[in-house]
Parts: sequence; C-alpha cells; structure tokens
Amino acid sequence: MTTQALIVIDVQKAIDDPKWGRRGQPETEANIGRLLAAWRARRLPVIHIRHDSTDPSSPYRPGSEGNDFKSEVEPILGEPVVDKRTNSAFIGTDLMDVLDELQVRSLVVTGVLLENSVDATVRMAAGLGFEVLIPEDAVASTDRTDRSGKAWSAEEVHALFLAVLDGEYARITTADAAIEALP
Amino acid sequence: MTTQALIVIDVQKAIDDPKWGRRGQPETEANIGRLLAAWRARRLPVIHIRHDSTDPSSPYRPGSEGNDFKSEVEPILGEPVVDKRTNSAFIGTDLMDVLDELQVRSLVVTGVLLENSVDATVRMAAGLGFEVLIPEDAVASTDRTDRSGKAWSAEEVHALFLAVLDGEYARITTADAAIEALP
Repeated sequence: MTTQALIVIDVQKAIDDPKWGRRGQPETEANIGRLLAAWRARRLPVIHIRHDSTDPSSPYRPGSEGNDFKSEVEPILGEPVVDKRTNSAFIGTDLMDVLDELQVRSLVVTGVLLENSVDATVRMAAGLGFEVLIPEDAVASTDRTDRSGKAWSAEEVHALFLAVLDGEYARITTADAAIEALP
Repeated sequence: MTTQALIVIDVQKAIDDPKWGRRGQPETEANIGRLLAAWRARRLPVIHIRHDSTDPSSPYRPGSEGNDFKSEVEPILGEPVVDKRTNSAFIGTDLMDVLDELQVRSLVVTGVLLENSVDATVRMAAGLGFEVLIPEDAVASTDRTDRSGKAWSAEEVHALFLAVLDGEYARITTADAAIEALP
C-alpha cells in the first residue's frame, strides 16, 4: 500500500473574510479535522499549506491575523508547513522535496478554495505523477458571478469543478471513505 | 512593450473525435487562424503545443491521425512545437526554456479545452509569473455531466471557467482586441 499524505490547503482565518463572497460546504473544516485525527492516530504524513499572499490588501498577507491557521486545522509538532505565494503549492515551494523525503506518491487533498488553489495544486500534482484523491466534503467553493453577470452558487461551482477534475486529475471520494480506506 | 507570444494548445484532429461529447465555440479554430496570421505578419513569436497522449486508446496518441494538427493551425517553418504528455504544457517539456530564449513574459493562450489543458497551462503560467491573456473566442469547452447527473452545456462551462480564471490568473479578451493591441 502506498503511503498517502493528507494535504490541507489555505485553511486560514482569512477564508472567513467577507471579501470572497458566500462560501459553501460549511462542513469542510470539521471534516478536515476528522481526517487530521485519523492521519495522526496512524502516524501518517500530514502537510499543511499556508498561503502568504504578496498582495498587501489580502487578508492572507503574512503578519495579519487572517494568515493564521483556523483552529480546526492547526499543525502539531513535527508536521511540515509549506508556505506558498501563488495558487499552486508546487510553485516556488519545497513541497516536492518534502513529498520525496516522505516517499509519498499519493495525496488526499483538502482545503479551500476548490476552484482556486485546490484546483491549481491538484492539476499540477496529477501532471507531476501523483495519485490524487479529493474528499468532496473536505473542500469548499464560493459563489461566483460570470462575465455576463450570471450568478453561480458555491454548490454549482463545487459540482462542476469536481466533475472536471474527476478521472482526468483525481478520484473524488468523501472524508469517511478516505478514513475507512486507511491501513 | 513586452513581447507577447501566441500559444496554441492541443488543436489537433483528435479534438473532433466524438468521444469528448459536444463541443462549443465552433469559431475557435478560425479565430486562432486569424491570430496566427496577425502574429506571423508582425514576426512575433508563435508556439505550438502538441498533446502526445500516453493513453493507447486516446485519439491524441502519437502515430494516429488524430495527433496531427488541424489545418487552420499548422505550424510553419521556424515556429517551435512543444510536445507534452500531461495537461500542462509546462510539465515535462522545454516550454520554459523556449520562452526564456525568446525573452517572453506575456502569453496569449488559445486552444482546447479551456477547462482542461488550457486551464492547467494558464494556472501554471500565472504562478510562474507570466502575464496571461485569453481571447474568449479562441478557446473552446465541451459539455459536461456532473456527478449528480446534471448536464452542463459547453457554453456554461466556458462562462464559469473564464470567470474563475479572470483576474486571478489571466485577463480575458477577444481575438479582435488581442490583434488590435499588437504593435
């Protein structure tokens, strides 16, 4: 059985800022908490991705309270924290070295936002040859308005982005199923 | 003014295979043809991305007729052709070297499919620091069915994916506007 690493992307206080618009999938943080507990109980690798925005007006900028991890996902001693500045956790970071060191080729990817940093990271992970699983109830999306002014709910964004990633880049699962499949 | 390279992604005969489902934006190939003519007339850099699928059942596999470029976008002498095997044109290829050699930091990205290789390539390009423009009438999407069985038209997929890329990863434009902006 391949070692699966649990990856938690951008679950920082900044995600609760109203500037992102309405967010869906409110169960996400609790489900990531359950995944973290299961991974930690089995001493499996957990990697935290922290977004350090270079935009001085972003709630994700380093030094602001928004940059802190949400309480449900706070790293514990020994868990690597990878700081990123772009949407993909593989660009300008040592994530690849961390995964090589752990001999990990399979990732369970969770966090926010599905249509943004999760998508950018998953697409690169798949291209780099990793097996990727996405628990659909441990990633969250936001409402969007398209260029014609049409509103898309976070639930619609969630459904379409998961559909596009499914098969081509990742296997879609649930937090429960990912935990049950652990050795 | 920064040199803009025109990038044409995966516009090969394979894209007309019925296995991908109904495709939208039938004007895409003609608009890419117009962009190519404008770039060539000004001797600006054009880079062709060719998908060499590693899936033996894919119409994009090398050696099959589907691997050939469509007539509207056939490279001419001197234009680099970058062969890729994953969705992103930056993974496992020399695209970065080609762009560095040309001293290009701005890309006009066209081709198929918007929600697949175009999206994966644009997200990486933005993360790697390139300015990215997407002419909305020179990229194409397909119909999709989500995991609940709900059908999404190619026009809906197009609108949502452009909305998510807009601002965060790219500026959305049109083929006409991209041509008019040329020096």
